[in-house]
Amino acid sequence: MQNRQYLLASRPVGAPTKDNWSFVTTETPALGEREILVRIDYISLDPAMRGWMNDGKSYIEPVGIGEVMRAGTVGEVLESTDPNFAKGDFVYGHFGVQEYAVVSTKGVHKVDPSLAPLQRYLGVLGMPGMTAYFGILDTGNPQEGETVVVSGAAGAVGTVVGQIAKIKGCRVVGIAGGQDKCDYLINELGFDGAIDYKNEDVKKGLKRECPNGVDVYFDNVGGEILDDVLTRINFKARIVICGAISQYNNTTPVKGPSNYLSLLVNRARMEGIVVFDNAANYGKAAQEMAGWIMQGKLKAKEHVVEGLENFPETLMMLFNGDNFGKLVLKVDHPNEA
Amino acid sequence: MQNRQYLLASRPVGAPTKDNWSFVTTETPALGEREILVRIDYISLDPAMRGWMNDGKSYIEPVGIGEVMRAGTVGEVLESTDPNFAKGDFVYGHFGVQEYAVVSTKGVHKVDPSLAPLQRYLGVLGMPGMTAYFGILDTGNPQEGETVVVSGAAGAVGTVVGQIAKIKGCRVVGIAGGQDKCDYLINELGFDGAIDYKNEDVKKGLKRECPNGVDVYFDNVGGEILDDVLTRINFKARIVICGAISQYNNTTPVKGPSNYLSLLVNRARMEGIVVFDNAANYGKAAQEMAGWIMQGKLKAKEHVVEGLENFPETLMMLFNGDNFGKLVLKVDHPNEA
Repeated sequence: MQNRQYLLASRPVGAPTKDNWSFVTTETPALGEREILVRIDYISLDPAMRGWMNDGKSYIEPVGIGEVMRAGTVGEVLESTDPNFAKGDFVYGHFGVQEYAVVSTKGVHKVDPSLAPLQRYLGVLGMPGMTAYFGILDTGNPQEGETVVVSGAAGAVGTVVGQIAKIKGCRVVGIAGGQDKCDYLINELGFDGAIDYKNEDVKKGLKRECPNGVDVYFDNVGGEILDDVLTRINFKARIVICGAISQYNNTTPVKGPSNYLSLLVNRARMEGIVVFDNAANYGKAAQEMAGWIMQGKLKAKEHVVEGLENFPETLMMLFNGDNFGKLVLKVDHPNEA
Repeated sequence: MQNRQYLLASRPVGAPTKDNWSFVTTETPALGEREILVRIDYISLDPAMRGWMNDGKSYIEPVGIGEVMRAGTVGEVLESTDPNFAKGDFVYGHFGVQEYAVVSTKGVHKVDPSLAPLQRYLGVLGMPGMTAYFGILDTGNPQEGETVVVSGAAGAVGTVVGQIAKIKGCRVVGIAGGQDKCDYLINELGFDGAIDYKNEDVKKGLKRECPNGVDVYFDNVGGEILDDVLTRINFKARIVICGAISQYNNTTPVKGPSNYLSLLVNRARMEGIVVFDNAANYGKAAQEMAGWIMQGKLKAKEHVVEGLENFPETLMMLFNGDNFGKLVLKVDHPNEA
């Protein structure tokens, strides 16, 4: 079967460009034992992908030069040599940025398109939702009446973080870029306040929206915004480090938080999270979140871009703050009838 | 009674200089109700004093211009209007950088010079000892077999942190300035390794001394050394932020830890501590530490400089790394027989 694929051609210096990719067409191989052929329908675009493009030790191996770019995906099983997976099953896995994949069934799990649109398994019902759930509840540990601030608030993780903090009875303030996103946070998701980092001073915004200081900060962006929040944290505040998208394309060293001594003054804590550590508890989390979705307390927003060939530009939307909700690529299959 | 005092004359920009102090002689006032007149024998010199000289919000009020400089001290009661304190009692309190003090007895507690030399109540039996005890045990939470690194290792807090970590069965590595201090840590205090930051590359030293990475880092210095340690931390490492002496005299912004995303990669935690939060448990801690001292497991080292007039230069020894052990000023009393 003809398979279009995006391979990592070279490691980016700064922001990824078209030259870092090669877009090739290959033939899918024959299936080995306990393998499946998957037709990929949706590809998840995540800030973490930028890190996977770098060489060097991290929480996961880098993508090798000449390898298919790693990505979370959902699709349909077309062939299977594993009795646990049948033709017609829909599945989630890291199948990569390509049209089809032949993969071992290890780490693959089924999803049910009758319960939720397929792409939602890449968002609120997938890794971003899990990241938000465990990050805010276990590490942030928000208590009723506390103030929770989240950056990247209109993104895949941020929208879920804020809504969960609302469910827990917190005052929730989102930091996002642009009036549309800020309006959405307040009017659609029920946030108590929003700060438009593209059009206002974040420090002033924090002063306005967090009159009682900040008890929990869930950080997706790093950089100046992290430093601004550090000036407003309360005694025993918890800062959850989920990402630092403002720094991922740096060619200069990462900007460390100059105001980190606020941790000392306030006996506060800054802690990093990676979702995979909670794999054993995904099921329980998914069940609770599904309940919130059904009760209308947790809303999903996806930003769908169509066409596999648009992968390089679509990925860049994340770093430019152009996505609004969970960014996914809908894969076209020109060779199918 | 004639009383020589160091007052804060102006707020320093960068390192404090002689011009920031006025050395005056005043007459001690008459005692009010529940007050004592104390003859101060030893003054504690601590990195935190630099912060107290700055204006602005912190964990404690700044010292006002024209006020006696705040300091932890021990001395002897000469007069008392509080039935709980008698002439001849020895006491600890924040009596300031002066020869005598007339103070309310609130927050003052007695110390016993027959159990330990008086200056020890400013070191291992005082705030530095308490800081080390609660910081390493409660926040660092070192487990047997783990690797614990401490910076400012030959200082008042660092020496105690390392020895407690040894008691808990850890591999302990100290970062200190100069061969003498490094030798002392290993030969006298039983540290497993030492890194001389003045004469070797700290990253290379960490690689050599911490072959299994770093599980707990107790940071007294901040700056480049914090960044170096961040590159070597293990999964679920704990970083205790006790101070950042390398940054206290900065005229440029504090150097934030550029490698803080290592917290994310390693799901590690960075947490600030201030000793006063543990006041309710000082007694229990003092008892346990006294036991270790008697068993020879916990050794004290003080660096005594004589003469109240030498306060400004002596304070600077802290920032130049010239002290070796707990730095105290022995107060002279030229008017006494």
